[in-house]
Amino acid sequence: MAARKPILVVAGVGTGAGTGGSTARLFAKQGYNVALIARNAKELEATAEAIKASGGSAAAFPIVKYDYADIHEAFDAIKKHWPGEELRVAVFNAGYGVWKPFLEVTEAEWKESVQTNIVGAAAFAREAILAFQQLECVQRVGARGNLIITSATAAWRGNLTTSAFAAGKHGLKGLAQSLNKEFGKQNIHVSHAIIDGGILTNRSKGVKTEEWINDPDVRLHPDSIAKAYLYLAEQDRSAWTFELDLRPAHEKW
Amino acid sequence: MAARKPILVVAGVGTGAGTGGSTARLFAKQGYNVALIARNAKELEATAEAIKASGGSAAAFPIVKYDYADIHEAFDAIKKHWPGEELRVAVFNAGYGVWKPFLEVTEAEWKESVQTNIVGAAAFAREAILAFQQLECVQRVGARGNLIITSATAAWRGNLTTSAFAAGKHGLKGLAQSLNKEFGKQNIHVSHAIIDGGILTNRSKGVKTEEWINDPDVRLHPDSIAKAYLYLAEQDRSAWTFELDLRPAHEKW
Amino acid sequence: MAARKPILVVAGVGTGAGTGGSTARLFAKQGYNVALIARNAKELEATAEAIKASGGSAAAFPIVKYDYADIHEAFDAIKKHWPGEELRVAVFNAGYGVWKPFLEVTEAEWKESVQTNIVGAAAFAREAILAFQQLECVQRVGARGNLIITSATAAWRGNLTTSAFAAGKHGLKGLAQSLNKEFGKQNIHVSHAIIDGGILTNRSKGVKTEEWINDPDVRLHPDSIAKAYLYLAEQDRSAWTFELDLRPAHEKW
Amino acid sequence: MAARKPILVVAGVGTGAGTGGSTARLFAKQGYNVALIARNAKELEATAEAIKASGGSAAAFPIVKYDYADIHEAFDAIKKHWPGEELRVAVFNAGYGVWKPFLEVTEAEWKESVQTNIVGAAAFAREAILAFQQLECVQRVGARGNLIITSATAAWRGNLTTSAFAAGKHGLKGLAQSLNKEFGKQNIHVSHAIIDGGILTNRSKGVKTEEWINDPDVRLHPDSIAKAYLYLAEQDRSAWTFELDLRPAHEKW
Repeated sequence: MAARKPILVVAGVGTGAGTGGSTARLFAKQGYNVALIARNAKELEATAEAIKASGGSAAAFPIVKYDYADIHEAFDAIKKHWPGEELRVAVFNAGYGVWKPFLEVTEAEWKESVQTNIVGAAAFAREAILAFQQLECVQRVGARGNLIITSATAAWRGNLTTSAFAAGKHGLKGLAQSLNKEFGKQNIHVSHAIIDGGILTNRSKGVKTEEWINDPDVRLHPDSIAKAYLYLAEQDRSAWTFELDLRPAHEKW
Repeated sequence: MAARKPILVVAGVGTGAGTGGSTARLFAKQGYNVALIARNAKELEATAEAIKASGGSAAAFPIVKYDYADIHEAFDAIKKHWPGEELRVAVFNAGYGVWKPFLEVTEAEWKESVQTNIVGAAAFAREAILAFQQLECVQRVGARGNLIITSATAAWRGNLTTSAFAAGKHGLKGLAQSLNKEFGKQNIHVSHAIIDGGILTNRSKGVKTEEWINDPDVRLHPDSIAKAYLYLAEQDRSAWTFELDLRPAHEKW
Repeated sequence: MAARKPILVVAGVGTGAGTGGSTARLFAKQGYNVALIARNAKELEATAEAIKASGGSAAAFPIVKYDYADIHEAFDAIKKHWPGEELRVAVFNAGYGVWKPFLEVTEAEWKESVQTNIVGAAAFAREAILAFQQLECVQRVGARGNLIITSATAAWRGNLTTSAFAAGKHGLKGLAQSLNKEFGKQNIHVSHAIIDGGILTNRSKGVKTEEWINDPDVRLHPDSIAKAYLYLAEQDRSAWTFELDLRPAHEKW
Repeated sequence: MAARKPILVVAGVGTGAGTGGSTARLFAKQGYNVALIARNAKELEATAEAIKASGGSAAAFPIVKYDYADIHEAFDAIKKHWPGEELRVAVFNAGYGVWKPFLEVTEAEWKESVQTNIVGAAAFAREAILAFQQLECVQRVGARGNLIITSATAAWRGNLTTSAFAAGKHGLKGLAQSLNKEFGKQNIHVSHAIIDGGILTNRSKGVKTEEWINDPDVRLHPDSIAKAYLYLAEQDRSAWTFELDLRPAHEKW
C-alpha cells in the first residue's frame, strides 16, 4: 500500500518557471501530491509532467478564469484525483498586474484586477478553508492547513502607475488579514508574503540584462520564495507568521 | 448676471442624512452648485429639493450602479446642467459594506464590494480628474480640483467579519494613494479620510440607543465630517493632506 | 476688566521663522496668550516681542534642555505669567535631526535624539495633560485641551541616513498614539502631524535655490502648517483627527 | 585541529529560559560558538554552562548596562575569546518594558526605555556591523552577517498603558528599518521580528495559569521564535526578510 501524501494546491503557476512552479517542485520533493491550477492548460500540463518525471506526484487542473465556479470545480477534481488524501497547504499565487497611467487603465482592466486579485483569491480561500475544516490538526505544526498568499509591494503602498494593481493587492491584503484573524482560532494558518522586487522567471529572463539575471543580489529567485513558503508551512502553532516581506539583498526600498 | 459658482459633486448621498448629505449642505452654503449622485432617485431628489429650499443650488443625478457608463453619464449631465461652471470638488462617499463570517459572504457580495468600493471609485475618480485637467488652478489653494474619498477603519486593518469590506476599503486606499502620487504634480489634490466609528445617520438612529445618539463623545456627526472635507478643500498647495482619520473622542481604537 | 484669553504653549520655536513661530502668530491673532518655549533665549524673546508689537499677547520661556525639570519649570512660569487663564492648546514642535551614515552617528547624538524627540516630548505632554485635566471641556469643541505633535516622514519609515532621526520620530509617534488612546476618554485631543517635505524657514532660505523658495508647489510654508494646527484645535469631539500628513503639491513620496 | 565555528552573539538572555536562551541553544546545536550578553552575570554564566554541558560552545559576557562602552567591551572580549572565528549572527533580544498609565511613568523609566530599547540597540548594531564588514560573504546565504532584532506589537501601535514601551519599540523599528536599507547593499541582512503575544518563560510560568502554560495555541514558545531566527539566518540573498510577525494560533490581534 502506498504511503499517504498530503496535497498541496497552488494556483497561479504560469509557465512553471516562477514562484508557483518552484513551490510545486519543492513541496513535491517534500512528499506532497501537487495540484496545479492556472489558466494555460498546456503549460500547466507540462509543469505537472516535469514534476512526475522527477519522481514527484502532480496533476494539472486548468481553469478558464478565477471565479467561484471554476475554482470550485478544480478543488472538486483535486479531491477526486487523490481520494482519501488531505489538502494541507494551499498557495494563491495568481495575480493580474496593470502598470500604466491611471487614465489609460480601462474598465475591463479594473474589473480583471479586482476579479483575479481579490474575488478569485476569496474563491480560492473559501475552497481551501472548507477543506481544512474537515481535517484534524497535523500534530507537528498544530494546523488544520496553511493558506499562503503571494502579494507584492503594491499591497503596502500605491505609486505612480499602480492604481489598479495597488487596489488589487491592497484588497488582497485586507482579505488575507481578515482571514488570518477569523480562522486562527480554528487552527488554520493564513499568511501573506510581500514580494518586493523582480523575480527571475522566463519572462524576466527575456527582458532583463545578463547582469541582472546572473546577480543573486538584485533579483528574487523563485526557489528562494518557495523555501519561505515551506518555512511558513512548517511553523508550529505557538509562533505563526501572518506577514513577511522578501526582497533581494541590494533592493532599494 | 449671476455670480459664478463652482461645482461640488458628491457620490453616495443615501437618504441625505449622512456624510454625503452633510457635505452637500455645507458646500451649498459656501456657494457651490451641488451635484448629487446616488442610486435612490427619490431620496436623492428630496435631498436636492431641501438644499434648494434653503437657498442653495443643487440637482440630483441618480444612477443605477457604480460603473463606468452610469458615472460618465452623470458627469455629462452635470456639465450640461451648469454650463460654463467649473467642477472643483468631487467627493466619493459611496460604499458597500458586508459584515459577516467569511464563509457566509456570497460571490455576488464579493463582486458588489469590489465593484462599488473600488471600480466605482475608479470610474468616479476618472471623471473628476478629466474635468479638473481642463481647469486652471484656483489661485487661493493652488489646486485644479480636490478629490476626497470617504474610507473606513477597514482600509487600515482587516478583522473578524470584515473580509469583503476590508478588501474593498483596502483596495480603495491603494487606489487613492496611487492617485495622490500621480496627480499631485498636476495640482490635483486627492485625499483619503478614514472614518473610524459609527456615524449618526437615520439608519444608526433607528438601531442605536438614545444615549448613543445624544452623546457627542461616542459617535461621529456627519456635519463634522463635512467640515473636515471643507478644510481639505481649502488647504493651500504648500501643505496638502493625503490622509486623516476621524473618530469620536471616546472611541476605542 | 480684560477679556479672558486661553493660553497656547508651543515648544520648539527656533528663530521664529518656522512652524513654531507661525503657530504662535496665528493663535495670537485668534486671541490666545502665546507662551513660547525654546533653547535660544535671545531669538525666543525677539519672537515674543514681534507678536506683542502686532497687538498679540506673548511671552518667552527659554529652557536649557528638553528634560523634565526644565519643562516643568517653564509650565510653572507660564501659569504664573497669566494667572487664572487656561492652557488649552499645547504644540510640541521641538526636535533633533541627524542625517548621516549610521556608523558616523555618535553616542552623544543618539542620546540627544531620543532625549529631545521622545523623552522631552513625554515631559511636555505630561505638563500639558496635567494642566488640561484641571479644566472643564470647552463647549464648542468638547475638549479639555489639544496636544499637537509635529512629526516627520521619518516617523513612518526609516531610510539610508536616518537611523537616529527615524528612531526618534518613530518613538515620538508611538508615544503620541498611546496618548491619544489613553486620554481621548478624558476629552483630551492628541494629534500627530507628519510633515513630509522641506519647510520654508530662515535656514532653508539660506541653502535652497530662489526657484525652490518661490515655488509654493515644492516646499511647505510654515503658515500653512499652522493653519492645520488651528483646524485640529477647532475640530469638535465627534470627529477628532489623530494623524494627518502635510506635503507640498509636487512632493514625490 | 578543531573545525572552525562561526560565532553567534545574543544580547538579552535573562534567565536563559526565554527567546535569548532558546536562540543560543539552537545555534549552539547548529555548530555556532555562542556568546551571551546580559546584565545578570550569574544567570548568564549558568546558561553558558548548560550549553557547554550539552556539548555546545558558549561563554558569558555580562555587562552593567546597554551603553556604548559596555557593549564595545563585550564584543572585544568575544573576539579575544574565539580568536580567528567569525561573528556571523547577532541577535538583539534585550528590552525594557513599562506598562502603566502615562502619568505614572517616571523620567527615569523613560530614560531607561529609550536607552535599552533604542540607544543600546544602536550600540549593539554598531559593533555587529563593524564586525560583519570585516568578513567576506558566506557563500551559501550571500551575507556577511545577520542582525536580528526582537521587537513587539508595540512597535506597530501604541496603546492604553504602553506610552514608554511603544516609544521604545517604535524607535527600535525605525532604527532597524534604516539599518536594513543602509546595509543591504553591503550584504548585511537586518531583520525585525514582531513578537505578538505572551512568551512561555520562567517569569510567565510564575504568573500564568496551568491552562495557559500547557496550551500551545495561546502562548509563544521561545524555541519556536528561535527557529524563526535560524530561518532568517539561512535565507539566501535573493529573498531576504526584513520583518515578520510571530504569534500563537489563537492570539486575538
